[in-house]
Amino acid sequence: MNDNAFGIRDGEIAIELPKQFDASLYFIGRIRTPWKHRDDCPKNARESEEICTLEVDPRWKQGLTGVETCSNLVVLYWMDRSRRDLVLQMPRHYKVGRGTFALRSPARPNPIAMSVVRLVGVEGTNLKVVGLDCLDGTPLLDIKPYFASTDAVPDAVVGWHTEEKS
Amino acid sequence: MNDNAFGIRDGEIAIELPKQFDASLYFIGRIRTPWKHRDDCPKNARESEEICTLEVDPRWKQGLTGVETCSNLVVLYWMDRSRRDLVLQMPRHYKVGRGTFALRSPARPNPIAMSVVRLVGVEGTNLKVVGLDCLDGTPLLDIKPYFASTDAVPDAVVGWHTEEKS
Repeated sequence: MNDNAFGIRDGEIAIELPKQFDASLYFIGRIRTPWKHRDDCPKNARESEEICTLEVDPRWKQGLTGVETCSNLVVLYWMDRSRRDLVLQMPRHYKVGRGTFALRSPARPNPIAMSVVRLVGVEGTNLKVVGLDCLDGTPLLDIKPYFASTDAVPDAVVGWHTEEKS
Repeated sequence: MNDNAFGIRDGEIAIELPKQFDASLYFIGRIRTPWKHRDDCPKNARESEEICTLEVDPRWKQGLTGVETCSNLVVLYWMDRSRRDLVLQMPRHYKVGRGTFALRSPARPNPIAMSVVRLVGVEGTNLKVVGLDCLDGTPLLDIKPYFASTDAVPDAVVGWHTEEKS
């Protein structure tokens, strides 16, 4: 299956995007990772034990107060190289099209990625973390404490994914 | 502790925001909840078993293909009534200031909330879910499948929160 000139694979569907945006974002820093090209990135975050760095802009320094007491963090970042108009996608390793909202693909109307990371160190406004799979230089949007009480659902199921593997 | 005219409490710190934005968002729908005023909202999502509705704009209908096979979803939404310049905050029930990135407060440079919800039904482009605590009409940004393999960390600790309670 080949990507065509517009970056759409056979079976994928793009729609017309809304005429205007509704809200705007600040990049609060950058993510430093060992991966310079998309093909270098691990397929998912559990595949790698590499330590990556959340470089938070010094402007937000005081916002990090207390973060060092968290074992795990929710990281939101901006997948700035992705198209935003795909509704049906054909991930390379699957046989049938899936809806964008049933996938963790970076291509989505708002290309905000969410990763749960393990915090391994704090050096000034740099946070050392394990659990990312994004390109070096990816814009950082937000950092949140991870609460097991509301965020951990160990028995959650993604039905299409389970079937795909069986 | 009283809010002052600018909505800052004693001990809170606001900074100057960047002069310009870096990226923009589409609202892909609205969230319908039973809560019309901030004081009505549950303190956190595990406090309520109310069924809420993710009303996805029909434009994105095909993006929902396969979502019905997910037991749980990650929902991103826009806390559009929050100030964005606070770095140190004094949540009402705590005694000391905490950094914005150590809190799940809606006040943050990019007021994107993340909730893990349980999917209880799909009706066209409306998803019925349990696990939200936001105001009725909140703008929806993204829906993702929740993968226990990467998203569930049942033994995660938020140190400051544990100490606060003890």
